[in-house]
Amino acid sequence: MSDMVWGSKCRSKAIMLLFSMLIIGLLNVSAVEARIRRYKWEVNTEYKAPDCFRKLVITINGQTPGPTIRAQQHDTIIVEVTNNLFTENLAIHWHGIRQIGTPWFDGTEGVTQCPVLPGTTFTYQFVVDRPGTYLYHAHYGMQRENGLYGSIIVGLPEGESEPFTYDYDRNIILNDWYHNTTTDQAVGLASVPFRWIGEPQSLLIHGRGRFNCSSLAVPSSDSGLCNTSYSDCSPYRMIVVPGKTYRLRISSMTSLSALSFQIEGHNLTVVEADGHFVEPFVVQNLFIYSGETYSVLVTADQDPTRNYWMTSNIVSRLAPNTPPGQGVFVYYPNHVRRSPPTIPPAAPVWNDTRPRMQQSQAIKARQGYIITPPAVSDRVIVLLNTQNEINGRRRWSVNNVSFTHPKTPYLIALKENLTDAFDQTPPPNGYDDANYDIFVVQPNKNATSSNGIYRLDFNTTVDVILQNANTMNPNNSETHPWHLHGHDFWVLGYGEGKFDKFRDAGKYNLVNPIMKNTVPVHPYGWTALRFRADNPGAWAFHCHIESHFFMGMGVVFAEGIEKVGKLPSSIMGCGQSQGLYRP
Amino acid sequence: MSDMVWGSKCRSKAIMLLFSMLIIGLLNVSAVEARIRRYKWEVNTEYKAPDCFRKLVITINGQTPGPTIRAQQHDTIIVEVTNNLFTENLAIHWHGIRQIGTPWFDGTEGVTQCPVLPGTTFTYQFVVDRPGTYLYHAHYGMQRENGLYGSIIVGLPEGESEPFTYDYDRNIILNDWYHNTTTDQAVGLASVPFRWIGEPQSLLIHGRGRFNCSSLAVPSSDSGLCNTSYSDCSPYRMIVVPGKTYRLRISSMTSLSALSFQIEGHNLTVVEADGHFVEPFVVQNLFIYSGETYSVLVTADQDPTRNYWMTSNIVSRLAPNTPPGQGVFVYYPNHVRRSPPTIPPAAPVWNDTRPRMQQSQAIKARQGYIITPPAVSDRVIVLLNTQNEINGRRRWSVNNVSFTHPKTPYLIALKENLTDAFDQTPPPNGYDDANYDIFVVQPNKNATSSNGIYRLDFNTTVDVILQNANTMNPNNSETHPWHLHGHDFWVLGYGEGKFDKFRDAGKYNLVNPIMKNTVPVHPYGWTALRFRADNPGAWAFHCHIESHFFMGMGVVFAEGIEKVGKLPSSIMGCGQSQGLYRP
Repeated sequence: MSDMVWGSKCRSKAIMLLFSMLIIGLLNVSAVEARIRRYKWEVNTEYKAPDCFRKLVITINGQTPGPTIRAQQHDTIIVEVTNNLFTENLAIHWHGIRQIGTPWFDGTEGVTQCPVLPGTTFTYQFVVDRPGTYLYHAHYGMQRENGLYGSIIVGLPEGESEPFTYDYDRNIILNDWYHNTTTDQAVGLASVPFRWIGEPQSLLIHGRGRFNCSSLAVPSSDSGLCNTSYSDCSPYRMIVVPGKTYRLRISSMTSLSALSFQIEGHNLTVVEADGHFVEPFVVQNLFIYSGETYSVLVTADQDPTRNYWMTSNIVSRLAPNTPPGQGVFVYYPNHVRRSPPTIPPAAPVWNDTRPRMQQSQAIKARQGYIITPPAVSDRVIVLLNTQNEINGRRRWSVNNVSFTHPKTPYLIALKENLTDAFDQTPPPNGYDDANYDIFVVQPNKNATSSNGIYRLDFNTTVDVILQNANTMNPNNSETHPWHLHGHDFWVLGYGEGKFDKFRDAGKYNLVNPIMKNTVPVHPYGWTALRFRADNPGAWAFHCHIESHFFMGMGVVFAEGIEKVGKLPSSIMGCGQSQGLYRP
Repeated sequence: MSDMVWGSKCRSKAIMLLFSMLIIGLLNVSAVEARIRRYKWEVNTEYKAPDCFRKLVITINGQTPGPTIRAQQHDTIIVEVTNNLFTENLAIHWHGIRQIGTPWFDGTEGVTQCPVLPGTTFTYQFVVDRPGTYLYHAHYGMQRENGLYGSIIVGLPEGESEPFTYDYDRNIILNDWYHNTTTDQAVGLASVPFRWIGEPQSLLIHGRGRFNCSSLAVPSSDSGLCNTSYSDCSPYRMIVVPGKTYRLRISSMTSLSALSFQIEGHNLTVVEADGHFVEPFVVQNLFIYSGETYSVLVTADQDPTRNYWMTSNIVSRLAPNTPPGQGVFVYYPNHVRRSPPTIPPAAPVWNDTRPRMQQSQAIKARQGYIITPPAVSDRVIVLLNTQNEINGRRRWSVNNVSFTHPKTPYLIALKENLTDAFDQTPPPNGYDDANYDIFVVQPNKNATSSNGIYRLDFNTTVDVILQNANTMNPNNSETHPWHLHGHDFWVLGYGEGKFDKFRDAGKYNLVNPIMKNTVPVHPYGWTALRFRADNPGAWAFHCHIESHFFMGMGVVFAEGIEKVGKLPSSIMGCGQSQGLYRP
């Protein structure tokens, strides 16, 4: 009897929720007409329990994920970020926004700006010049995994529409989550001997996970430490109306994990990737790598009398102790708290690379929206991805060079011609591919470190071949999602084994390659990209796994520096930019 | 039998140890002739277990306390500090060094310099112009209590000697120690409602304490978390030769606690305070407040067949769960690990203010070393110490104004005449003493905040009256150790109750007042100081309790700015000093 009363109360609550969502939707539509969108963000450290385990996280205006930036193509975004952390700096990167004309607001500490000090406010200002699904996140140390991230959703201009239809637009960010602190992790990564942090404790769906508190090795004396009744960790629930089609934007902000995402029993039609329309294809599992964004269409076309699981699972790494991320796909008017009657769907086999490679290869530009790449490139850079040691310290390297940050950000050093600010010798253009066996642990583990960069001739076409290899463990090669700042690139091809410039380059897709800003290189495989060096600035290109970039897995491209406008003094203050003259 | 073998082995070890100490002593003597002493410090985060509980601490060259700086009067100290923290800045203050001519190297973030960014090296250079016992420590956020502190010991020039004799010179720093992180603490202090961190988990004697691991509420699953066999937490042992006299330098770096220190059964003759010779007096308990340094003479004149306890205890706060700090005073050739046969001596009654007030009043300048203060002052500033709220947030205030840091350090703002960098209205010169009852909780808890400062006319004589009061809890007034940067002051008097400018000022000790840089104001009491505003620069004056200064308990004095030399660009980079012209 009381159950029925409760159920009926909750139904009215669900109706009110739906109504509120409609109102919010209408408000968004009316707000879209403004051309300048101004945000004031307060960044704080506070306790949150996103997976029921309470820890200190970094929030924006009290939230993690932070507020979603919603804008329309060509809008100007102004974000005033106030750093209320106690002794930690920050920098925020606008992931997927090319920053054309504003390379100084890319938000990449050490590359485009000095870090933002505690107690100060930094104002980012940039144009969102393309519609699509983008991200923002900390780009300083490993702060991103402390919770400082969110979404940027850019709509089409009034009167324009996507080449696909849907009834509602929804957005979720997938993440993995650690219980120990970033400092703990960083100390382990930088230690000799290396101490690996292990796999994450949980997977979050839009900032909500569910750690099994009773699985804590010892029950905590602090009853507040882990509590599954915290509202922070009530599962993400997507309420859908039977028969309706949803555009679901899905992004990954994982610090480590490659993920498979599925909605039990529902097909996902992939229509967007990193802001570009995709020739539609259907998947049950969407594989998604850190830094990628997709839109999928999903129709609520299954038995409406029950709810369904939304799950994320780790692939490409063995992580048996990390429970899957779980949300609920709620068919209105079912009770939002009603669990699906089934067990959650099984995850793909973690170490089966083939379906992941197949999905990568299936992503093509949509007919009618193809941007044809230049037929040939002016330069080819091959980047061998390896795990190494430098003075006994574990590192990741590119062509056996492990990246280190200079004290003066590259953009400032280049623009102000501070030639002693970083190593002027560029890193190698490739590796000794004739004599390198990518399938074995290398007898010589050693690498060197450098802060040298690749200078690209302006307006040239550059190919990059990402070449994967064996790690320092036998029979092990990892998946690395590489993210390029300031550009989209065409994805010309993926392959297994060692890239062969004669055999493989001839098979490039020059007809309908997708453009992206983040792309995986699969275990023991290669990925070929092409981009135009047409955006004056200095741009990071790096593995989006937080610990890998921290350990040196990245490079920097610079182009058209002479075309970069006057740098704002707000990006300065570190290295040789303490005291530069700004009239 | 095996015990005897072990004992004899250990005796030879003890002899070798003594011999090594002699050699090190000789090396120090020979090194004393150099006039420039250069240090290279690497600041890192690493795991240490100073009280047997493993936690992340901040180290200098792998140590906490950091390396001791040993120099001779008039030497120049050059310390190149490299910040290897991941995302945290730092600044290091040279506590007790007046920085005459180098106000920019005082190391006070927000007052004399911008913080030192991760990955960068900052070079401090200053002269140690007076012999004595000094300190250095982080002066940024609450980093000091993470372990970033150490000693500076300045000897007399060759051929000069102190007005007292001793056979050996020893140095210890006393500290309190928390198990939670500084960020945890800071979040609690800055929260609404306020969350107090509680009393420290242990007391350290020269970086070593002994937490009772079995007192952890729940035994940890991590066997490495707390282990009383860690070498980090083997007790401090001071080996003494019977009949010899030791100069024991004792400093306090506590984040919170006022301490009583004693060596069981031994008299301590106080001969130095904050670098000034004291007219000798004998105590059994030495009361010492955060930021103070003392030298005591102690003669190994007790029964030499046993060892003795060295203990530190919390006074002025009720802290029944904080075990006393314990070291061992080892009479050579007793086994260093032999425990004293007695129970450790009892602590003074925590809330008996009288003996503490008596000790404060007993400290006078030594005959023959008296620096007579000016007979009158040009200005009197009364500073009422109160606990308040601002917008529901707990704060500490001075004259009902809670101090906040500006973005541009005062020294830079003043020297470069950046008048919009901070509030140009000075804080109040006093409080409404006629109508303020210091013995009760105030009906109005509210305070205001400001970053305004006191501008002192150069070369004038300034009196400061520190006036204590009731906190926000009934019948509670705390002890606050106030530390002045850039100067020593004469301690003209201490008293109980409300300072009366007619009655009390007439009783000032103008004959032989001690000079100090740190002085307590006792519960419900007052302390009167006098100093000459003769050191061009901007100087913090604040409660040395880490959380109290963090919560606003401080002021800044500025004087003779027009006489400050050219500021080094290394102190810049923040606030309005991003991009200042440095030719």
